[in-house]
Amino acid sequence: MKALLIVAHGSRRKASNDEVRALTEAVASHPDNGYQKVACAFLELAEPSIPDGLRELIHGGAQDITVVPYFLSAGRHVAEDIPEEVGKVTAEFPDLPIRVAPYLGASNTMAGLLLAQGAAG
Amino acid sequence: MKALLIVAHGSRRKASNDEVRALTEAVASHPDNGYQKVACAFLELAEPSIPDGLRELIHGGAQDITVVPYFLSAGRHVAEDIPEEVGKVTAEFPDLPIRVAPYLGASNTMAGLLLAQGAAG
Repeated sequence: MKALLIVAHGSRRKASNDEVRALTEAVASHPDNGYQKVACAFLELAEPSIPDGLRELIHGGAQDITVVPYFLSAGRHVAEDIPEEVGKVTAEFPDLPIRVAPYLGASNTMAGLLLAQGAAG
Repeated sequence: MKALLIVAHGSRRKASNDEVRALTEAVASHPDNGYQKVACAFLELAEPSIPDGLRELIHGGAQDITVVPYFLSAGRHVAEDIPEEVGKVTAEFPDLPIRVAPYLGASNTMAGLLLAQGAAG
């Protein structure tokens, strides 16, 4: 079973975390979605944590997990903190593939998305 | 002359601000770009500020400006701070249309972008 974990920073503002949860549902119901399970987790300030999010997917039957960082820039969070959090679960389940995809801001379609957003009302 | 101003939060980390500048160049050279000028500005921690970025576009001949917030969630920065900064320049040039577009995270193509990013290597 293939699963996707969307990892956001997390906010003290509940509405921001709920935006991530709503986006997660939009990804799950997207026609291009090829994952059997899509969930979200937060680096800090909100639940579930990244390890807890991964463990829940694994306990639910995930055998192959992709982590996608919902971050705009390649700072310490993306370069160090997220791999470190993922590493805790890799250590618990060494045979289960968990791959961290490039962060959102690295998308080569971001320029086109900004142009579309500028035209949006 | 139509111009686009990409507004990012700004970071103490120079590389993060440079990522926004590189994205701005990618938008300017994108085949779908219909703006004569594309620039970036920062809410804090980096230069130029939003008012300075807008003034530079206006002094360069911009007659119609779209501001697009490069932000993932609709927090105080998007709801209050960016409109307030833009408002300073609107007050100086009341006849020049400056429109603030929806922030990036509000894009209805974000779910598809996350799926594509999950598949990226």
